[in-house]
Amino acid sequence: MGNKRNKISVIGSGFTGATTALMLAQKELGDIILVDIPSMEDPTKGKALDMLEASPVQGFDANIIGTSNYEETKDSDLVIITAGIARKPGMSRDDLVNTNAKIMKSVTKEIVTYSPNTIIVVLTNPVDAMTYTVYKESGFPKERVIGQSGVLDTARFRTFIAQELNISVKDITGFVLGGHGDDMVPLIRYSYAGGIPLEKIIAKERLDEIVARTRTGGGEIVSLLGNGSAYYAPAASLTVMAEAILKDQRRILPAIAYLEGEYGYQNIYLGVPTILGANGIEKIIELELTDDEKTALDKSADSVKNVLKVLE
Amino acid sequence: MGNKRNKISVIGSGFTGATTALMLAQKELGDIILVDIPSMEDPTKGKALDMLEASPVQGFDANIIGTSNYEETKDSDLVIITAGIARKPGMSRDDLVNTNAKIMKSVTKEIVTYSPNTIIVVLTNPVDAMTYTVYKESGFPKERVIGQSGVLDTARFRTFIAQELNISVKDITGFVLGGHGDDMVPLIRYSYAGGIPLEKIIAKERLDEIVARTRTGGGEIVSLLGNGSAYYAPAASLTVMAEAILKDQRRILPAIAYLEGEYGYQNIYLGVPTILGANGIEKIIELELTDDEKTALDKSADSVKNVLKVLE
Amino acid sequence: MGNKRNKISVIGSGFTGATTALMLAQKELGDIILVDIPSMEDPTKGKALDMLEASPVQGFDANIIGTSNYEETKDSDLVIITAGIARKPGMSRDDLVNTNAKIMKSVTKEIVTYSPNTIIVVLTNPVDAMTYTVYKESGFPKERVIGQSGVLDTARFRTFIAQELNISVKDITGFVLGGHGDDMVPLIRYSYAGGIPLEKIIAKERLDEIVARTRTGGGEIVSLLGNGSAYYAPAASLTVMAEAILKDQRRILPAIAYLEGEYGYQNIYLGVPTILGANGIEKIIELELTDDEKTALDKSADSVKNVLKVLE
Amino acid sequence: MGNKRNKISVIGSGFTGATTALMLAQKELGDIILVDIPSMEDPTKGKALDMLEASPVQGFDANIIGTSNYEETKDSDLVIITAGIARKPGMSRDDLVNTNAKIMKSVTKEIVTYSPNTIIVVLTNPVDAMTYTVYKESGFPKERVIGQSGVLDTARFRTFIAQELNISVKDITGFVLGGHGDDMVPLIRYSYAGGIPLEKIIAKERLDEIVARTRTGGGEIVSLLGNGSAYYAPAASLTVMAEAILKDQRRILPAIAYLEGEYGYQNIYLGVPTILGANGIEKIIELELTDDEKTALDKSADSVKNVLKVLE
Repeated sequence: MGNKRNKISVIGSGFTGATTALMLAQKELGDIILVDIPSMEDPTKGKALDMLEASPVQGFDANIIGTSNYEETKDSDLVIITAGIARKPGMSRDDLVNTNAKIMKSVTKEIVTYSPNTIIVVLTNPVDAMTYTVYKESGFPKERVIGQSGVLDTARFRTFIAQELNISVKDITGFVLGGHGDDMVPLIRYSYAGGIPLEKIIAKERLDEIVARTRTGGGEIVSLLGNGSAYYAPAASLTVMAEAILKDQRRILPAIAYLEGEYGYQNIYLGVPTILGANGIEKIIELELTDDEKTALDKSADSVKNVLKVLE
Repeated sequence: MGNKRNKISVIGSGFTGATTALMLAQKELGDIILVDIPSMEDPTKGKALDMLEASPVQGFDANIIGTSNYEETKDSDLVIITAGIARKPGMSRDDLVNTNAKIMKSVTKEIVTYSPNTIIVVLTNPVDAMTYTVYKESGFPKERVIGQSGVLDTARFRTFIAQELNISVKDITGFVLGGHGDDMVPLIRYSYAGGIPLEKIIAKERLDEIVARTRTGGGEIVSLLGNGSAYYAPAASLTVMAEAILKDQRRILPAIAYLEGEYGYQNIYLGVPTILGANGIEKIIELELTDDEKTALDKSADSVKNVLKVLE
Repeated sequence: MGNKRNKISVIGSGFTGATTALMLAQKELGDIILVDIPSMEDPTKGKALDMLEASPVQGFDANIIGTSNYEETKDSDLVIITAGIARKPGMSRDDLVNTNAKIMKSVTKEIVTYSPNTIIVVLTNPVDAMTYTVYKESGFPKERVIGQSGVLDTARFRTFIAQELNISVKDITGFVLGGHGDDMVPLIRYSYAGGIPLEKIIAKERLDEIVARTRTGGGEIVSLLGNGSAYYAPAASLTVMAEAILKDQRRILPAIAYLEGEYGYQNIYLGVPTILGANGIEKIIELELTDDEKTALDKSADSVKNVLKVLE
Repeated sequence: MGNKRNKISVIGSGFTGATTALMLAQKELGDIILVDIPSMEDPTKGKALDMLEASPVQGFDANIIGTSNYEETKDSDLVIITAGIARKPGMSRDDLVNTNAKIMKSVTKEIVTYSPNTIIVVLTNPVDAMTYTVYKESGFPKERVIGQSGVLDTARFRTFIAQELNISVKDITGFVLGGHGDDMVPLIRYSYAGGIPLEKIIAKERLDEIVARTRTGGGEIVSLLGNGSAYYAPAASLTVMAEAILKDQRRILPAIAYLEGEYGYQNIYLGVPTILGANGIEKIIELELTDDEKTALDKSADSVKNVLKVLE
């Protein structure tokens, strides 16, 4: 038998990858392999060691190592991809897409070699297209390749609503479909404070402002930081998805899933409500949409398809 | 009555300060004010907001704000100082000491103005001298000005021992006196695995190697990272001290405390075993030392005094 | 200053009281005084000591004492009343009401003497009337006397829904108004799985069955146990209310609150959505009801009034 | 792949069994099967359901069921045995031993049938002999049959020391060898407060009193309760052992282990320091004993052997 610990590989040791590793370890979800390219091996080892040295004080048991050698990821139960470049001034979107797609392919090849039965969660932007790329490259069944965007988008939305109402974040829920950020399709009618629809307690204009702020929530952090982008909330979002999968919690969480007819789309990765459990995406939940919502979702899907075209 | 949340100010929004803010919030120890200089106000706000946006997903209720305005720190229950510069290539140690002492003085002035009854924990290096500087500047009673070093040094030691024995970090304890890092005086005879003295289960030469590695544990991370220094384990160390104080846990933790005769020293801040509780340092625990240990501690104290001389 | 620990008194050391004490201590919400009548003093001390002896292994710092002396409750930040008798075979409802009301009065007198500024949460049944009794006897402002019923009713509802859908309990919410158990007024339209209204994913007849089961959820446990009534879920419900208050979380939780015009009622304690924070009930949230819901709530209120008449 | 949840069966649904089930679930260590004899099936179901109904409020995902059908325990990762009777007034010790041995045999037969690869932890008294009985009946390798006593004994000792010193329980450790309760052999020289040997900070007579109180710690609770025995601290002790095994933490914990030469004993189950991990007892740690300690341990072993003789 042997109740061996889970093994979780986090690809990319930047701020998001490293913070994800920390949060996974804090929850004792498994041992962590933090992976980056050879030229970053030493800093990756440094971060891993620093985190490990926090473990006696934080009270968690998890081995954490940094490496550039994918052999160390062998038989991972879960792999999280945060690797990739951020868009730099002067870089075209197509350059970004193609560069990160190349990274996704190379990373996926390694993952598949060493962990053919693992589940992969992708964070790298543009996340819908990058998840698609990993899916195609991996040859994995669709339920084992998942993208993150909705957990983060709703986390931001919930934060803003909690502030607006001066209420615990624990009692605010949000709901979003479609792509990440600008392309997100918030379903306000499915968003609540203590179960009360937000539309009943926040004026429409104010809600619209909060939705607008959520859409550009990533950009807000980027412009405040001046250099770099958000990592705490993205890492927390990846961690909650990892926990749902590794503990087979069957949580209802928004995720970027491969659609084969759901919501009327084919051969596309798009943000939809899912059930996450031991098998990855256990189920996609289909909802009836209003015409407005469907129109917005179509737009979001078009936007994803346009990015995919760059890749062909 | 009103069971208001604690208010914790973290001065310095670099990696250590920001990570400390996150860990304090994760434990719901209070609301967090992350403070940095005006030119850093936006990044500080960005980090605070990013962390706050993690709260719905991580499940903690804590307000976190970034600011450069000390008025926001008014009536803090605890203030943690992580501000200061790191030694740069070519910079003399005296320059480092004087620059950071200047920062400590200016920061302390602000803290005292807005939170005259708070407790202050100092991380800035050289930490013994900087804690002394904050103590003098604040005019606070000695139990309310505390430096961090031993929790971090023993965390590293415990990590290395846990690895050596392939044992849970939860069952390893370490014990250290004196200054930080190079100057630390490990009391191996008070260090255990599951209660068993380490000397009984690890060969002396191997233990010596591990002690040597612990002494240079900060440097090991610095050289791996290439750029910057450790922040996860330091932040965790500050957090456990904050928790002991804010929850009045009366924990026995090593801390840099002001000595008035204890261990034979006067008018110096030095690492000793303490009881941390609601009043800060509730007690300094005095131990009989062997001649070797006393000699090592004298050397450590001399080293601290030499730094203090720079300040005069 | 002094960040002293909270002090929480739990009146009644039966299964619910004792389990509540354990759960409060596990969360390190404060020191616990478990109080019962003099003839029960020794068993109360025994339970408190047994719990305390669990603390090194569970890793919580909280003093827990058992006593029959109310002086020990002095300056409690929160008092939870679980004392009272259960209805025995052959006992009329009026006898139950009068006996427990007498207990409430005597307990409240003691609480008020030693903790004039505390907040009181009542669990004793019939809880609406007993909360009213405590309110009148205490002379406290209404926001500081609160009854528990809706958290428990919705916890049961959420459990049944989670089972029905094979989904994490974390993603199910329920909503209830009015009295406890039989008298509860579930607002199904405000109950969700992952934000999706339950009505959209569970057939109406099945939902009705689950509501019916929830109404008699207490009785279901009673008849399974054969001897005694539920205590785990009631204790958990009290604990989450205590946490919201002691940590000033401003959570939206259903609670039995004193109404002065809200929902059209006067001078009655009834289950309504509230915001719980440092001041107790920070706010009562008023919702528009459908005619059916209003009729059901009227019936629930009548039922509470009928019990109150017994007391006059 | 599939990261299925662990499955933990708890045999015996009395206070200890039920509290253990709760604590396991609170830590999300797996799904829980609470098992009792057919005549107790309904109360067992009642407790399991009540606990499950606490889960939405306590925030844990764990299925908990009550049953008298061992088929439900199929493929358990861990089985904890709390079943058995307590010694009643007028009952001879031999009667107790024989009755509980009969229960152990019948329970073990069922466990082995449905979970041939599981690990078994035994709490039933007299625990050394009962663990031996389970070992023999199961035919399992010795590392997969473990008894609990030392975690509980040291938990009590730690509690008393923490009270004596007014210090956090987190910083007190204790160390014990040999049988449970009266027969325990405390190794005071391996017991510390914050790493400082207790002998240096507590007078010998006072330490002796605390050891004496620890020896009779179970009896102290029994006589306070008047009816029944301790269950909170025993449940917490079982839970920490379960966690070490299920999370492969390799913790150093005292456990009742089968000795084949260790400490000079053969063919006996006795309390010794062990490493607990995924395989059960990963290692027995042997320590040099003083003559006094060895004499005391011999006495403890004799006492266990005397009980075993009853069984032959």
